[in-house]
Amino acid sequence: MTAKLNVVPFVSVDRMMALVHETGVERFLAELAAYIEEDFRRWETFDKTPRIASHSHDGVIELMPTSDGQHYGFKYVNGHPKNTRDGLQTVTAFGLLSDVSTGYPILLTEMTILTALRTAAMSALAARYLAPSDATYMAIIGNGAQSEFQALAFKALLGIRDIRLFDVDAQATRKCAANLSRHGFAVTCCGSAMEAVEGAQIITTVTADKQFATILSENMVGAGIHINAVGGDCPGKTEIQREVLLKSSIFVEYPPQTRIEGDIQQLPGDHPVEELWRVILGEAAGRTSRQQITLFDSVGFAIEDFSALRYVNDAIRRSQRFDELDLIADPDDPRDLFGMLMRAELPKAA
Amino acid sequence: MTAKLNVVPFVSVDRMMALVHETGVERFLAELAAYIEEDFRRWETFDKTPRIASHSHDGVIELMPTSDGQHYGFKYVNGHPKNTRDGLQTVTAFGLLSDVSTGYPILLTEMTILTALRTAAMSALAARYLAPSDATYMAIIGNGAQSEFQALAFKALLGIRDIRLFDVDAQATRKCAANLSRHGFAVTCCGSAMEAVEGAQIITTVTADKQFATILSENMVGAGIHINAVGGDCPGKTEIQREVLLKSSIFVEYPPQTRIEGDIQQLPGDHPVEELWRVILGEAAGRTSRQQITLFDSVGFAIEDFSALRYVNDAIRRSQRFDELDLIADPDDPRDLFGMLMRAELPKAA
Repeated sequence: MTAKLNVVPFVSVDRMMALVHETGVERFLAELAAYIEEDFRRWETFDKTPRIASHSHDGVIELMPTSDGQHYGFKYVNGHPKNTRDGLQTVTAFGLLSDVSTGYPILLTEMTILTALRTAAMSALAARYLAPSDATYMAIIGNGAQSEFQALAFKALLGIRDIRLFDVDAQATRKCAANLSRHGFAVTCCGSAMEAVEGAQIITTVTADKQFATILSENMVGAGIHINAVGGDCPGKTEIQREVLLKSSIFVEYPPQTRIEGDIQQLPGDHPVEELWRVILGEAAGRTSRQQITLFDSVGFAIEDFSALRYVNDAIRRSQRFDELDLIADPDDPRDLFGMLMRAELPKAA
Repeated sequence: MTAKLNVVPFVSVDRMMALVHETGVERFLAELAAYIEEDFRRWETFDKTPRIASHSHDGVIELMPTSDGQHYGFKYVNGHPKNTRDGLQTVTAFGLLSDVSTGYPILLTEMTILTALRTAAMSALAARYLAPSDATYMAIIGNGAQSEFQALAFKALLGIRDIRLFDVDAQATRKCAANLSRHGFAVTCCGSAMEAVEGAQIITTVTADKQFATILSENMVGAGIHINAVGGDCPGKTEIQREVLLKSSIFVEYPPQTRIEGDIQQLPGDHPVEELWRVILGEAAGRTSRQQITLFDSVGFAIEDFSALRYVNDAIRRSQRFDELDLIADPDDPRDLFGMLMRAELPKAA
């Protein structure tokens, strides 16, 4: 993949930001969604395992691997809700893509920004199959780090331009509104979640507190709505009232993971859900009526990160915008690692 | 750990080689063994899971995570026996250490060289508890990339200076002999495995072929020998004849992993083995008689990599010999990742 065997292309945070600007954030989101869609269409070719989590008092560190037989990818990601108080990100991430036939890494990249983009792209992709086709208004409840990405993805993929915001922290709402108003949105800041959902055909919940919360209760959800439930994504962290789940058609990424991490952790393990890849492939129905309430219980699955790694890998090879990381020991004779190490001895001062 | 939140210290292959030379390879091995010993003494404080493997036709890619509650570490490592034919390493690796309380990475490092060093340090550490205390001769069967590291570690920890080499590939033996003769060893190149083990008190088997092989058969192993079985380390890859295992006292790292990957995959799942950490802690006996045949069935466990990461992390902070990797997005307001991304837009040409 690269002429120099020891070198692994590396996309730093700065490089990722440059790539997003070079591409345009909306085009980036649309192209990324197309890569995810492509991989969801070949869902059955992937090795799938639930993520490997290491839980601690303050948060969780996870590894999310998958492979399509040609490439292997994994993401390292943490989730530490208390980090915000210390001026740190709740979620940081990086990822790696490698060549299955040799095991050699071919890309190392930041994934904090990339995860924000892929989560939003995934939400909008799901909504394209599930939301009412004439939706124009979206409510976003929870106006933190993921909120603007959600709005942009829904604009890029579904043409949504009217956004209604609510957060318990009015400062977060002001920040989000200011960011979005520069991107062609008509933004309404609301004083309550109830006010925010008025007239919205799509409701995105993306709050950050790690608790069983009720962001969306039954009286707030009318017929024909699509709910994009993003924030309920780990055990003990939910947003959607159980009654709302019971009257919705529920769509998920990978049931064994979503039943543990998603809002459906509140439901029995055999409650019927539909796998989104089957809807995308045309093997299962998405929205079937105007009255139906659809709900995408998003938790984020390794295949979406794989798609994002694949997309960035293709993009940087076109633009040559990456750094070179001296990550792989490459002796002339592969059996002589020791000889390589010894020959590297620095010249002694005379 | 570092003032700049976005920056992760990175130890490249070149930096690792410089660190080894600066320290001295034997001192590096001895210090690394001390870190492993320290972590084996607090074995029960670690989160332990078998490695997560992705198998393919040509090899395997694995993630090996563990945590002591303060730090989290993982290693990415591949094993592709066919790589050598294409001028590539069979095994390449890199690893990461992070802070459990925030989830933020604090070290990224090459681990191809570091794994070779830690595997050898582990072998010699085990031998210090298991080999005859007056051992002077070691046979090394299999003279590939790991062989010299093994010899150096046994010299650093046990004072072994007499080495008897055999490999089916005479060129590998010549390479190993040439490397070792520069490091104060008396080396004997042998025409057969049987010849190599003559008079040796320690036998190290470290062959590379992925098959059920019989490198060491019953007639080659006399009373009082310590066998350091390094090469049998994945399902379908063994080196030691079953009869040898049956007459040996067997010591392992982590039984659930070794029963799948080690030479003891040939034995019933309830065959008695002793955990090395218990021997090191004094809770179980190591060698109890001169006649006993001891066998360390080494497969490599995540805690050893954790010790290696911890050692390198301490060492580079003393010498400041690392590069800085722009891996973590660090917005001024952690909720405003989008704002950070937007403000990074490159100035347009007029």
